[in-house]
Amino acid sequence: MSNEFIIKGANVARLQSDFGSTGFKMFKGSILNNVEIAYETWGSLSNNNDNAVLIFTGLSTSSHAASSVSNKNDGWWEYMIGPNKPIDTNKYFVVCVNSLGSCFGSTSPAAINKKTEKIYGLDFPELSIEDIAKAGHSVLQSLGVDHAHTVIGPSMGGMTSLAYALLFPDSLSNLIVISAAARALPFTISIRSLQRELIRSDPLWNKGVYTKESAPLNGMKLARKLGLMSYRAANEWRERFNRARLPKSEQKDMFDIEFEVENYLDHNSEKFVSMFDPNCYLYLSRAMDLFDVAEHGGTVNAGLAKIHTKNNLIVGVESDILFPIDQQQELANGFSKARKKFKFEKLNSIQGHDSFLVDEKNFSKVIYDFFNE
Amino acid sequence: MSNEFIIKGANVARLQSDFGSTGFKMFKGSILNNVEIAYETWGSLSNNNDNAVLIFTGLSTSSHAASSVSNKNDGWWEYMIGPNKPIDTNKYFVVCVNSLGSCFGSTSPAAINKKTEKIYGLDFPELSIEDIAKAGHSVLQSLGVDHAHTVIGPSMGGMTSLAYALLFPDSLSNLIVISAAARALPFTISIRSLQRELIRSDPLWNKGVYTKESAPLNGMKLARKLGLMSYRAANEWRERFNRARLPKSEQKDMFDIEFEVENYLDHNSEKFVSMFDPNCYLYLSRAMDLFDVAEHGGTVNAGLAKIHTKNNLIVGVESDILFPIDQQQELANGFSKARKKFKFEKLNSIQGHDSFLVDEKNFSKVIYDFFNE
Repeated sequence: MSNEFIIKGANVARLQSDFGSTGFKMFKGSILNNVEIAYETWGSLSNNNDNAVLIFTGLSTSSHAASSVSNKNDGWWEYMIGPNKPIDTNKYFVVCVNSLGSCFGSTSPAAINKKTEKIYGLDFPELSIEDIAKAGHSVLQSLGVDHAHTVIGPSMGGMTSLAYALLFPDSLSNLIVISAAARALPFTISIRSLQRELIRSDPLWNKGVYTKESAPLNGMKLARKLGLMSYRAANEWRERFNRARLPKSEQKDMFDIEFEVENYLDHNSEKFVSMFDPNCYLYLSRAMDLFDVAEHGGTVNAGLAKIHTKNNLIVGVESDILFPIDQQQELANGFSKARKKFKFEKLNSIQGHDSFLVDEKNFSKVIYDFFNE
Repeated sequence: MSNEFIIKGANVARLQSDFGSTGFKMFKGSILNNVEIAYETWGSLSNNNDNAVLIFTGLSTSSHAASSVSNKNDGWWEYMIGPNKPIDTNKYFVVCVNSLGSCFGSTSPAAINKKTEKIYGLDFPELSIEDIAKAGHSVLQSLGVDHAHTVIGPSMGGMTSLAYALLFPDSLSNLIVISAAARALPFTISIRSLQRELIRSDPLWNKGVYTKESAPLNGMKLARKLGLMSYRAANEWRERFNRARLPKSEQKDMFDIEFEVENYLDHNSEKFVSMFDPNCYLYLSRAMDLFDVAEHGGTVNAGLAKIHTKNNLIVGVESDILFPIDQQQELANGFSKARKKFKFEKLNSIQGHDSFLVDEKNFSKVIYDFFNE
């Protein structure tokens, strides 16, 4: 029994054969054997093999970006993907991969290591954003796609899309990076570092050895609360909750939940903890801290200059505190300096880093326009 | 043996007599007996009894705001207080009180309850910012001061100064509120709420029953890290740490401290945990969430309109994420609407909420100017 959370209707690509008997070579040098990547697709590949759109996800979501025949549940980007939607499945063959290292069906710290027949846990090798990009590239290859029309991703998926364009510059035409950055800055590192420490401080974490039934749920809950605080924006909460309170009668003791905002965080973090593996969280979170476009050329600008997509779209949100707007500006400046064709969309969404999930109006427009200009 | 952390050279005012045999009446109605408040003074009271400056502190500092004959160690506001300094002890009789509920010598959850001869812990009654203000007022009375020249405080001390002006409008001439607010907003509440949960999640917290030797230090450390993240500003850290790393050889495992910013947080939170009582932290932190000027008149503006000091100074810092500048703007707007005399200083300090501790140049100037205009 693994610690995975398998998504109904997802396909699985077995990547080992792509790399021969040596398995999947990780960016930091380790070899990972029997790599499998969960993915879902919408629409059909054109006869010219020129309409594939590859989507990389944020840290905590699965390949289920939109509903489909085999899984009718809404996906995490339901408003974005479908017939006549901004990513139009009448026109494009859309592929969303579950990140290598994530627990929704891809090989990860939550999966069984076929060699030992035990859950990987901390035996999983150090994970890089580049590994996630490379696994996505292999999924496209396994589907017969040599060249993507567009690679797109929000948050961690935006970093992964950048990594894809750096590793496989001849394998995509267009790049869309949403609410992401060339590398994490210290404030963001500090948030993620503390999240990881909250998980690791839960005695049930037990140095990464636990079952689904004995998982460090309290540490995960605390980490998720901190995450939710960084995903949203102070002013949105001000409008939404202000100082509204629960009835005094519901308070069990002096330090119990009293304000609506405390209740919101408690409720939402509680929902999450039983839906994600703690070790996977640690690995993916650390990969985001470590990613740095500057490792692909000496400086961020030198890295970005190596990307030679036809069109690039950078999207950022002014209320984002996790990937602040000046980090998307940095990407735009780098493309500008290297004389690449790009568009930089600064959105005034009030929902902070999470805006791409909820601000349908603003995000639909910029993505629709990109595909139709 | 209490859980207190007594400061060398501090005086103690016994407040019980001020309230007769019923003790100290708390804002929420409880009676607290045998209340003692630690305080320190600098300079001398004038013959006209018109030069007292009362300082309220932030959550985690003691009455030791500046060095003195009886305690030569630097205080937390050393640059601000002394002969010929902005708060000039040649001219003013300066009094800094340790907040009621804090562990530096004042009656608090860390002190012995004389009735039970046990440490208060969670038997301490619910604490309000107003109680801290009232205790400070009583200290002034015990020193023979009926009317303060100025009441001043940063952060929680700014809220306490506002509470003082609301509770004792005829007992002060001037008010200085630094990096504070009329009330906490949801983002700030969420930070403090999570800090409290981190302390309470440490098994050693044990529902508030612990000794100094068995205190929930890990929970305190995690809470302090989150605090430090909210006290500073992302751009300062970017300049200071960027992505600098420790030598790889110092890393014990994959998730160990690697970036300088992680090291800074670890080092500074470690220093703090053995210097503050966890239960006191919980009470003071909650008091800040609960404080609301609107409770003194129906709305924030109606509350502020009741203050009738001669001069008011509001100071805010544009990089502050804990008490954002629009909260000081709200205070300024309230004074403006009520046609009070006030000055609003927006500082461009880069050190976030903590700027009042470290940005000597900007803060010296605005406080000096206030006292000399």
